[in-house]
Amino acid sequence: MAKRNAVYAQSGGVTSVINASAYGLIQAAQASGAIDAVYCGHNGINGVLEEQLIDVSREAPEAIEALRHTPAGAFGSCRLKLRDVEKNREQFQRIVDVFAAHDVHYFFYNGGNDSMDTVAKLSTFAKEQGYALQVIGVPKTIDNDLPITDNCPGFGSVAKYNTISMMEGSMDTESMHKDSTKVFVLETMGRHAGWMAAATGLAARDERDGPHLILMPEVPFDKARFLEAVEEHVSRIGYCTITVSEGTQDAEGNFLSESGTKDAFGHAQLGGAGQVIQDMVKGELKLKVHGAVLDYCQRSGRHLSSKVDVEQAIACGREAVALAEQGLSGVMVTIVRESDSPYRWSLGHTDAGNIANQEKMLPGEYIREDGFHITDGFRTYCRPLIQGEDYPPYQDGLPTYRRLAKHLVPARLPAFP
Amino acid sequence: MAKRNAVYAQSGGVTSVINASAYGLIQAAQASGAIDAVYCGHNGINGVLEEQLIDVSREAPEAIEALRHTPAGAFGSCRLKLRDVEKNREQFQRIVDVFAAHDVHYFFYNGGNDSMDTVAKLSTFAKEQGYALQVIGVPKTIDNDLPITDNCPGFGSVAKYNTISMMEGSMDTESMHKDSTKVFVLETMGRHAGWMAAATGLAARDERDGPHLILMPEVPFDKARFLEAVEEHVSRIGYCTITVSEGTQDAEGNFLSESGTKDAFGHAQLGGAGQVIQDMVKGELKLKVHGAVLDYCQRSGRHLSSKVDVEQAIACGREAVALAEQGLSGVMVTIVRESDSPYRWSLGHTDAGNIANQEKMLPGEYIREDGFHITDGFRTYCRPLIQGEDYPPYQDGLPTYRRLAKHLVPARLPAFP
Repeated sequence: MAKRNAVYAQSGGVTSVINASAYGLIQAAQASGAIDAVYCGHNGINGVLEEQLIDVSREAPEAIEALRHTPAGAFGSCRLKLRDVEKNREQFQRIVDVFAAHDVHYFFYNGGNDSMDTVAKLSTFAKEQGYALQVIGVPKTIDNDLPITDNCPGFGSVAKYNTISMMEGSMDTESMHKDSTKVFVLETMGRHAGWMAAATGLAARDERDGPHLILMPEVPFDKARFLEAVEEHVSRIGYCTITVSEGTQDAEGNFLSESGTKDAFGHAQLGGAGQVIQDMVKGELKLKVHGAVLDYCQRSGRHLSSKVDVEQAIACGREAVALAEQGLSGVMVTIVRESDSPYRWSLGHTDAGNIANQEKMLPGEYIREDGFHITDGFRTYCRPLIQGEDYPPYQDGLPTYRRLAKHLVPARLPAFP
Repeated sequence: MAKRNAVYAQSGGVTSVINASAYGLIQAAQASGAIDAVYCGHNGINGVLEEQLIDVSREAPEAIEALRHTPAGAFGSCRLKLRDVEKNREQFQRIVDVFAAHDVHYFFYNGGNDSMDTVAKLSTFAKEQGYALQVIGVPKTIDNDLPITDNCPGFGSVAKYNTISMMEGSMDTESMHKDSTKVFVLETMGRHAGWMAAATGLAARDERDGPHLILMPEVPFDKARFLEAVEEHVSRIGYCTITVSEGTQDAEGNFLSESGTKDAFGHAQLGGAGQVIQDMVKGELKLKVHGAVLDYCQRSGRHLSSKVDVEQAIACGREAVALAEQGLSGVMVTIVRESDSPYRWSLGHTDAGNIANQEKMLPGEYIREDGFHITDGFRTYCRPLIQGEDYPPYQDGLPTYRRLAKHLVPARLPAFP
């Protein structure tokens, strides 16, 4: 079989290990008997639509090697979600045209729920058009909210980063509580699912360890019960540290803080839940409060990635190539848990349509009965995912994160309107 | 000379390496021919006033060893500042009484400007009372605002943490900017001096690297010029990342965000400068913005401490004992820069009165002419302080930070009212 070209693209919010998937995928593609050139979409699917394809062969080998430890999206990511084919035939046709112009017959899309929607639709569209295209999804999301796969590359590292940030912030508060700060609030990401907030619960191994309370989107926020719990901790141990997910909402589904703006996917853009909680504690309980908002630092904090997460991210990238070699299309690589302790995992795959537009919430069995903390079941689930350290190399005191040269393949088609 | 007992206490906002100073000091004190028992104030000077002295000899040796890599204040810190002796004779007398009751003749106080005020006053007071007491200050402040000493233990680690956080947040923004976030705002601590915000400038080595703009308390904030600079970056490179110090203020000295509350030292308690900048950029320029507030995570982020900082913190603790052995009192250990490149440093000391209540602001020569960034002079100053990594040991995915047993020495005096 003649070798044919492949395109890889990154999509959605980036992670500290999405480039590790790119690294695994590019390595495997370059070694594959089925794949010739590897191109990467410049800024995700935008790069395909605009025929801006980065030529991987023109990158220094050390730059590709550095993808393993470089956070964020080295090729640029995107928030563009393709609408349904019926309403949006031009974009799907353009993608196929660009692929045809560059002899591209493999498309690897590295993203979350929305990206798997694109994987499923594009695979079907190409088939209908009679264009030979294999579309494979590589999972990626700090939200850890994809169904079927046991966990998502990107989550383990955020879980580790957030847990350690909570440990350190709690110890700080414990040091200061005698005559200063009594309450510390850590805001984590997590639009609808509480995985990232819940993970910080791993830091609590002693009653004095934070977080003492975790506010998750899955549990309707009840102000009176919350303030009572804060007061109880402060009166018993002198301080209280709290993790709050940006997606925390009340029983009516109103976000604790709703900015009123929406992102390009139409999702509410959140932020400020931590500030709302800080103001509430300060105003109602008259306690001195401090708060941190981790925001992008948590999802791109490659300096503190989990080794397991890095390994899984690389493996998922490699597996995508293997699935392509097996002739599959419209599927996403999944991580399968074989056992908890010792932790063993393998790779599988599922139809991308099973993943698209679905969100796996934190199940009830992972949430403590009072709604303010995690269960041992969650600990058993989450602990393996934060195991091991995988430090980037440093030079002159800073990590040697590397920017790619991003030479574009010459365009062959007229510009897309 | 008969051995006599010593008290060590931690004061003010904690750091990721204040316990490393405790570790160095305790090690040196235990090896000293002058010092017998080492006690530690439980929650700083509060522990002396309340006769709550932690008996170091009852801690497991591994726990003392773990101080080297454990962040925050292991013995508890405090915000209590002793008022002038004339207005506050009872507190000073109580301290001397407690020390006399426990045969304590060495007092090591690990803190910043306010603590050195206590060192100077207490040393003088004891002398006036004819009580043999040597009081030695050990420098500690993430603010890096103590005069005379070239830098302060705690700062190098925050500088490293904040710089890497900005690198990672900037790379994230660069990945997303095509059709999503254009501006990222990182709020750092720094009540009056801009050292911690300025440090993030080390991340900028290419015009695409953040931070593109740094807002420091030393430079009066000018909204129109700031927004113009943001727009210029977004139109030229597509995005803009900004570091803002919590202490940023306008030409009239109004903080960008003034919460209106004050801490126990009477200083305005700040926070929210980052949110103000985010809202300004979103509201005026209609750009999608994200923001992180590092707060306590930056100052207790021991997982990312600078090796140089850890070494200096330990050395300062040891040197305090050496100064005590030399018969000094009312002095603070200082770090002396011998050369920039290669970086060489030694230790010195100065009268605590030279440090007390003074703040070393970022000098003009370290601020770029337009006020929005740092100079090469600052880079030369700051770069050596973030060199080297000093990772804590990990177990089960988390750092092995350790809590002390804190057995108290039995009280011998009536309670202090």
